[in-house]
Amino acid sequence: MSATEPVADNGVNVEALLEARAALTDAPEAADFVWRATTEWVRGTHTETTIDEYSGLGENHTHKSTFSYTADHPEVFASEDHGPTPVEFVLVGLATCLTAGVAAVAQNRNIQLNSVKASIEGDMNVLGILGGDPEVRNGFNDIRVHFDIDADASASDIEALVAQSQKRSAVFDVVTNPSNVSVSVN
Amino acid sequence: MSATEPVADNGVNVEALLEARAALTDAPEAADFVWRATTEWVRGTHTETTIDEYSGLGENHTHKSTFSYTADHPEVFASEDHGPTPVEFVLVGLATCLTAGVAAVAQNRNIQLNSVKASIEGDMNVLGILGGDPEVRNGFNDIRVHFDIDADASASDIEALVAQSQKRSAVFDVVTNPSNVSVSVN
Repeated sequence: MSATEPVADNGVNVEALLEARAALTDAPEAADFVWRATTEWVRGTHTETTIDEYSGLGENHTHKSTFSYTADHPEVFASEDHGPTPVEFVLVGLATCLTAGVAAVAQNRNIQLNSVKASIEGDMNVLGILGGDPEVRNGFNDIRVHFDIDADASASDIEALVAQSQKRSAVFDVVTNPSNVSVSVN
Repeated sequence: MSATEPVADNGVNVEALLEARAALTDAPEAADFVWRATTEWVRGTHTETTIDEYSGLGENHTHKSTFSYTADHPEVFASEDHGPTPVEFVLVGLATCLTAGVAAVAQNRNIQLNSVKASIEGDMNVLGILGGDPEVRNGFNDIRVHFDIDADASASDIEALVAQSQKRSAVFDVVTNPSNVSVSVN
């Protein structure tokens, strides 16, 4: 970029990420991360989940804080609504992943963001989870994410930010493609 | 069941759920739910997400409380670790969905649960999201859930609880099968 171009500051340290990419390409085993959570049943559909540790770069790490999450089912499912449903936590993951990605891509493209808001909706027919109709899937039939973005860029550049964020999003991949899950019990 | 059998109390109102299933089978449009969340970008990869409303049974509903979630990236990604990563929220969704399902199935099978703990791990090679290796996917390569369950039941009956919970879990379906996601921008 020329010296006269403004330098965007979205708070993402792109230089460090590009250095990390180069370093991990040379030491690919360090790129293997393991993310963890522990869920304790309370009563009914009410659970408490804790997140504190993860692994990566060849060692264990502890988050700066221990994060705790309450999940439940709402009163329309004859539960007590102590927290959101599990599927709403998936929407949190998808919307936050795409939004963080927009910020990272904008920084890399020297586009100043002024505000970003993502509104996410997931359609689900609950006859699936209730076992009422074998033709109905348990999960989402359709998910829609709508971004409102104010940035110092053209509409087409903003669209390109969102497209690139999808391309590199971990949770977008998890939701749109199958992942292997193995479940064991003591 | 005979009058002499113990009656399990796991806090799940199975009668109400079976009634709901029957009612919704007769009025399937009421089974269409929409779950929602709204994410606001703060700075860098730090976002704040709010959950309060959802739709179902032909009308809009408000959760008993507004739920707010902070997400971020950790310091090893040159971020500030204000909250868990988006992918960890997906693990919260999966572990809590399967755990609530164990409770519901146990209630339906008259099995008293004493304690349930789910430990979940997701493997991810971050060269995917960093764009460092086109052969590496962005999402999880493998997810493992391990249950420790203390219940008044045989080991095989406990294994069957976990298997049935997987079969009816919304988030297990979302993670193991593809879902359609459309993304728009103003």
